[in-house]
Amino acid sequence: MRRKAADSNTYRFFVAPGSIAGDEVFVADEVLARQLASVLRLGPGDRVTLLDDSGQRYLVEIQSLERKALRGLVMERYDATGSEARTRVTLYQALTRGERFELVLQKATELGVAAIVPVAYARSAVDPGEAQRKRDRWERILREAAEQSCRGRLPTLAGPLAFADACGAAAAFDLSVVLWEGAAPPLRAVLRECGTPQAITSVALWSGPEGGLSAEEVALAQNRGSRVASLGPRILRAETAPLVALSVVLYECGDLD
Amino acid sequence: MRRKAADSNTYRFFVAPGSIAGDEVFVADEVLARQLASVLRLGPGDRVTLLDDSGQRYLVEIQSLERKALRGLVMERYDATGSEARTRVTLYQALTRGERFELVLQKATELGVAAIVPVAYARSAVDPGEAQRKRDRWERILREAAEQSCRGRLPTLAGPLAFADACGAAAAFDLSVVLWEGAAPPLRAVLRECGTPQAITSVALWSGPEGGLSAEEVALAQNRGSRVASLGPRILRAETAPLVALSVVLYECGDLD
Repeated sequence: MRRKAADSNTYRFFVAPGSIAGDEVFVADEVLARQLASVLRLGPGDRVTLLDDSGQRYLVEIQSLERKALRGLVMERYDATGSEARTRVTLYQALTRGERFELVLQKATELGVAAIVPVAYARSAVDPGEAQRKRDRWERILREAAEQSCRGRLPTLAGPLAFADACGAAAAFDLSVVLWEGAAPPLRAVLRECGTPQAITSVALWSGPEGGLSAEEVALAQNRGSRVASLGPRILRAETAPLVALSVVLYECGDLD
Repeated sequence: MRRKAADSNTYRFFVAPGSIAGDEVFVADEVLARQLASVLRLGPGDRVTLLDDSGQRYLVEIQSLERKALRGLVMERYDATGSEARTRVTLYQALTRGERFELVLQKATELGVAAIVPVAYARSAVDPGEAQRKRDRWERILREAAEQSCRGRLPTLAGPLAFADACGAAAAFDLSVVLWEGAAPPLRAVLRECGTPQAITSVALWSGPEGGLSAEEVALAQNRGSRVASLGPRILRAETAPLVALSVVLYECGDLD
């Protein structure tokens, strides 16, 4: 069920970049066209909110709903970035069994993650090939979660990558944190050592599979510039830890205000 | 799949209070007895960790595994409260459709919630009768999540209650917070107005259904001593908001350290 945008009382949808040129709207998307016509019973003259991941959102009047496309006219354009987190968090999430991984995709998008990279850690029980096969499905989960949570931009879905290939990316972030159940300082200490968390603009979060990262992976991550951090004495599942860490990071950085 | 306790490398199970008297262990639990014997292939001489929700945990040597009961002997006893949050958070969670409500039960337990009260808000789409019928199932979810996350105590499952009957409980807490998508100060401000969050010992969190609390419910909650708080500009689902708020409250109170 798609949700009406809180601010304009219209349904809201992400559409492919390039669908909106000037005031002309042409969206070649059979699924969307069918949903608008058959499920929501909309037609010429009705209005919807469209986003093309450009940072703008558009109030669009439907001109025609064809079997495989929507044609319309831009009535108003607004900045769509007001609901986006200032801090860009990239989640390097372990490939885990389907349902749990998909939960992380959905919830991290609601929370405001900027990018998700599926990672094959040493103990990941899932074939990276699955990530390729499921890419369309995962992108749909991200898009629907972004629509429902009234985001202005879609999170990026990269990878999948093997951990050894991914871990060098740590250097590109203001802060790179590996969640670790072993002996590690609390996330609070790691965040506050950075000075003012609200000055952090980019964070990488590394969250391992059931069974955690191997000692070798932790050593390699630290060697490439990541810090390890603990979420306390309770053992969180592989799909829970990243969502708790993401909540805390966005909170500390002022992005839940 | 039950997980081995991190600290003793044994399987860990909550058993009914009264199962352990002095050094004698008698657990009349057919499901547990079958799991130990048939799934985990344990027998006399093997050891398990048992918890009776008393704040202690026991290293127990199995003496016999009967068809419907376990007999054993306490070998060691330990304090089990080290993994418990200092801050007691009670979550007044809206009854929502089955799967989402159960996700909240599981994740809130992992995080360290002290008690969960299912609440029928005005816009709750679920019959409170369902809460009665599902009580056994929900208690099993709590117990398994407490075992997996290495908690020392089981969260309490109360209710279900109608919102109007529940909301007066706010006065019993150091802080009572209603999560609200309308105009409200951020949760950060509400927590920090209390002075030192780490001095807070009890918190009530009120989390509504899809569609949120009604304006009347918010007014009634405020009238009974609750504060309203926002989690920022992104719209979180009914099962996501309480987990984010719980993460933030426990983090601010020092319980993720």
